[in-house]
Amino acid sequence: MSNILVFGHQSPDTDAITSAISFSYLQNQLGKKTEPVALGKPTEETQFALDRFNTEAPRVVSTVSEETDQVMLVDHNEKQQSVADIESVEVLAVVDHHRIANFQTANPLYYRAEPVGCTNTIILKLFKENSVAIPQNIAGLMLSAIISDTLLLKSPTCTSEDEQAVKELADIAGDDYEQYGKDLLKAGTNTADKTADQLLNGDAKNFPMGEHTVRIGQVNVVDVDEVLDRKAELLEEMEAQSKGEGYDLFILIVTNVLDSDSVAVVFGKDADRAAKAFDKKLSGSTMLLEGVVSRKKQVVPQLTKELS
Amino acid sequence: MSNILVFGHQSPDTDAITSAISFSYLQNQLGKKTEPVALGKPTEETQFALDRFNTEAPRVVSTVSEETDQVMLVDHNEKQQSVADIESVEVLAVVDHHRIANFQTANPLYYRAEPVGCTNTIILKLFKENSVAIPQNIAGLMLSAIISDTLLLKSPTCTSEDEQAVKELADIAGDDYEQYGKDLLKAGTNTADKTADQLLNGDAKNFPMGEHTVRIGQVNVVDVDEVLDRKAELLEEMEAQSKGEGYDLFILIVTNVLDSDSVAVVFGKDADRAAKAFDKKLSGSTMLLEGVVSRKKQVVPQLTKELS
Repeated sequence: MSNILVFGHQSPDTDAITSAISFSYLQNQLGKKTEPVALGKPTEETQFALDRFNTEAPRVVSTVSEETDQVMLVDHNEKQQSVADIESVEVLAVVDHHRIANFQTANPLYYRAEPVGCTNTIILKLFKENSVAIPQNIAGLMLSAIISDTLLLKSPTCTSEDEQAVKELADIAGDDYEQYGKDLLKAGTNTADKTADQLLNGDAKNFPMGEHTVRIGQVNVVDVDEVLDRKAELLEEMEAQSKGEGYDLFILIVTNVLDSDSVAVVFGKDADRAAKAFDKKLSGSTMLLEGVVSRKKQVVPQLTKELS
Repeated sequence: MSNILVFGHQSPDTDAITSAISFSYLQNQLGKKTEPVALGKPTEETQFALDRFNTEAPRVVSTVSEETDQVMLVDHNEKQQSVADIESVEVLAVVDHHRIANFQTANPLYYRAEPVGCTNTIILKLFKENSVAIPQNIAGLMLSAIISDTLLLKSPTCTSEDEQAVKELADIAGDDYEQYGKDLLKAGTNTADKTADQLLNGDAKNFPMGEHTVRIGQVNVVDVDEVLDRKAELLEEMEAQSKGEGYDLFILIVTNVLDSDSVAVVFGKDADRAAKAFDKKLSGSTMLLEGVVSRKKQVVPQLTKELS
């Protein structure tokens, strides 16, 4: 009989990859014959966790029905986030922490969803309920997922169960989770290998505000200085692109995912008005925006109001 | 703040009513403010359990949004089985043992489904996982639901977890579950108050078989003799109806839900061929059909083959 395949969502993050590994391990200990797979390659952050805990990345698949009739889903349930041929196989089990939608089965199944910060927080409970011991490397991967999903326990989605799970898993993994967590998140926000153009435009959009054309990029980091040390290079690139593209204002939001603050690097003739939008003054073309993490909700409306 | 309402499906059976009571109790012990309600009145079987364990039937509702914004579902998830205005409220939690279909939420929720025989088998696990003690009367109601859903552990849907749950709950309820289970199932299959016509036609269908018109009724009992003692009265009624309606053969399948056997009462000119279909001979217009519980799968095809 073919293995039951266990997998997380498309464009997998650390929880999607590692919850497939941890849940598959648990199921195998309980007598099932399963294999973890993934719907994409690991991100840099996930690869950092896999390397640290000596685990191979799961095999990448995009369809499954040619090799199995039965699957288990982790960290997702909606069919458009799953394998292309999800409707050709039977879903035996789901472990997830998202809303339920676009999901339907013909038969009763095992479904375990809880409104916590990370799928692996639920899987830890399943290990305990079934009295199965967690190997050190799998505990490390589960720990990595919770750190990733909760931004080291600082996200608004983090619950007391996630906090408790991080402590228990860190004990098994033998790790100082605070130090490791920073290293892990940093691996996922590596900026050193990126060009100034990649930093500015990797996630950037144009916003018309009154008569002005404003371009706003955002980059997530755990070490703001790693980007700010390149301020001269960035401003030079912003100037060149503003001339070429006709931007009146170019802003790069450098967001520290650990402390939920951002520093804005600002270039253009409207730079002072941009600062005024936040009741700030620029210092060397930058300003600190305390508590700002969302461009959509915490930057664009304020600038629009000032410039329109 | 209004109570969170907890309820099972429409046309509630014993599991639908009692899982609302047991899950609501558990949630209240965990600090929520909930109330069990029901989408219909208790059946005779359910009322027997409620009386035995000194519990009032839950208040009956058909809509909920006029009194609460939040609900918890037990023993169902499909919206057409739920309250009419289910899409106007937020579903905080679901505990169920059916397939998932026609169910969608906007937010993450608690969802616990397992492919076992009864919702209360899952709720027993939730009590244990949360270290909440089960009061004697609630244990008795939970026990009743598992007995009902599994036909006293004899249904093909019954799992080893259901069996174990029955033993644990019977210990808390202080009951001999085998004796109580028979009494409970019997309460749900009361035939004493029914007329011969109600017994024959309460669940009956006509089947054309070759040139013959065959009418087959079925009645579930725990005491076959309670029906067979009325054989003369039944045959008299079958004769009258056969003449009036032109049946060539009238069969009443009296199914013992405890031992999964049936006795057929047979009237008509084709009676001997009906017996031959099962390699039987009639004795006083009856025959024992060992292991037969399904008219659709275990009676109609055999008769059709013989008479066509």
